[in-house]
Amino acid sequence: MTEVACVGAGVIGGGWVAHFLARGLRVRAWDPAPDAEERLTRLVDRAWPALTELGLADGASKANLTVTPTLAEAVGTAGFVQESAPEDLGLKRRLLAEIDAATPSGVVIASSTSGYAMSEMQTEATHPERLVVGHPFNPPYLIPLVEVAGGERTGRWAVEAAAEFYRGTGKKVITLDRELPGFIANRLQEAMWREALHMVANGEATVEQIDTAITEGPGLRWPVHGPCLTFHLAGGEGGMAHMLDHFGPSLKSPWTRLDAPELTPELRDAMVEGCEASGRPIAELVRERDRALIAIQRALDEVRRG
Amino acid sequence: MTEVACVGAGVIGGGWVAHFLARGLRVRAWDPAPDAEERLTRLVDRAWPALTELGLADGASKANLTVTPTLAEAVGTAGFVQESAPEDLGLKRRLLAEIDAATPSGVVIASSTSGYAMSEMQTEATHPERLVVGHPFNPPYLIPLVEVAGGERTGRWAVEAAAEFYRGTGKKVITLDRELPGFIANRLQEAMWREALHMVANGEATVEQIDTAITEGPGLRWPVHGPCLTFHLAGGEGGMAHMLDHFGPSLKSPWTRLDAPELTPELRDAMVEGCEASGRPIAELVRERDRALIAIQRALDEVRRG
Repeated sequence: MTEVACVGAGVIGGGWVAHFLARGLRVRAWDPAPDAEERLTRLVDRAWPALTELGLADGASKANLTVTPTLAEAVGTAGFVQESAPEDLGLKRRLLAEIDAATPSGVVIASSTSGYAMSEMQTEATHPERLVVGHPFNPPYLIPLVEVAGGERTGRWAVEAAAEFYRGTGKKVITLDRELPGFIANRLQEAMWREALHMVANGEATVEQIDTAITEGPGLRWPVHGPCLTFHLAGGEGGMAHMLDHFGPSLKSPWTRLDAPELTPELRDAMVEGCEASGRPIAELVRERDRALIAIQRALDEVRRG
Repeated sequence: MTEVACVGAGVIGGGWVAHFLARGLRVRAWDPAPDAEERLTRLVDRAWPALTELGLADGASKANLTVTPTLAEAVGTAGFVQESAPEDLGLKRRLLAEIDAATPSGVVIASSTSGYAMSEMQTEATHPERLVVGHPFNPPYLIPLVEVAGGERTGRWAVEAAAEFYRGTGKKVITLDRELPGFIANRLQEAMWREALHMVANGEATVEQIDTAITEGPGLRWPVHGPCLTFHLAGGEGGMAHMLDHFGPSLKSPWTRLDAPELTPELRDAMVEGCEASGRPIAELVRERDRALIAIQRALDEVRRG
């Protein structure tokens, strides 16, 4: 398979186009906007220096993009379809049905939706079994994560084929076993985002303070270790177990507008076991974190100095 | 001022000790634990390679640490006091009063508390005007952010002196204008953390999936741009305005357990103006983000390869 169809010429659609082109694939793209070609060209042009710097795949070229005048011409010969239309459930339902009708049989169709469940979106399609969520992060050409999830009527084979396809293009895939509004990463970042909006709405913090609080604070840790391993290290030698026993009571504090779950023994153990599952000793994780924090801050200093 | 007193020998207390030593200060530390000296020595030893790699200040030495047998001996000659005791309000109240009684007059005393308001903690001190919150992030020797906040009875001069002191040691300071449980950064990360705990408690995601979702996804962006500027760029050429107009409806979606605020015209404008305040065009921010994302991922690859 060397041809991908991309439907939608927004930031995410354009980011996918850039990613697939950089990985040496041919891309046929369509968007109903009259300036779709201009927009896609601009998005790809803007991404290309970064992609070149990262290293293009053999045969990768911006010239491998064709913007088609109709949807059918974009998807009719595709080996994989990526839909990145605006977040509107009715629109997604109709569009996915249209794509399904025009795409060669057996080809997987993925939606970039930020949070709709595929069960909600696949209702009008004739072949719902090949419809999956393939949710990327902005910019799709630089952030590795793609969350893949099927709906009630999606075939397991389609979920697996999508995961394999994305991995083949260099992506890091999380396959969700169940449908969950917002999937995993968006649920996590949305909780933080909503707290931020509340804080601005209530005059508790400015946009600048919120951004600085993250970029100069916990945000520096999150490319290294996620929230769980980060707190595993906050517990010192005792790890997550000590951290939960020490900071558990703060879950009752009004530190955010989101109520915490009851810290049952089962939840405590699940967190502790999850953090210890890698078998990596605390001291090793601390060394990794420290080296990474230095490397990240140096890298950012260099970028900011230009 | 060249001598700092550190009270508490846990991960945060020890991290502060390492930070101050690396910046060339003398540190006198105390903790009631019988193995306080051993613990502090281990914490400093573990941090020292990273601090050496970063570059030590003139005169910086691990030998500049003295662990004292009593609290009074630790704080009695200090030019600044950093308290990092366990999160227990009664304990903090009594301890801050004790520290206050033994510290030279006019010297600022800061608490590393993760979320108590200083107004709650300064109730038993004779000189509450010099008590401030100085909240760091783990590890305090590598994460720049310190949140400084006073209580009702704190003098403005003490807040300013603490901010200046921390900045002098290389920290990035956010001074809060009002008391807010969890301050700013902890409110934001706590919202994400609580959503993560709910997800594990409900079998919606594993610890590993949560961490991967962040480290391979949005977490990569947060050292570069905070949540606001990140979403400013998700809006394409239209920035935060387009983003809110497009994704605003998703604030009603059950993407997290935290209800969003009403997206009033005032809140929308505050977010848009906050993101545009820097005057930096979208294209420039996109270039910065892309270069930073590449640099961060390369830096992490190198660290992980050892």
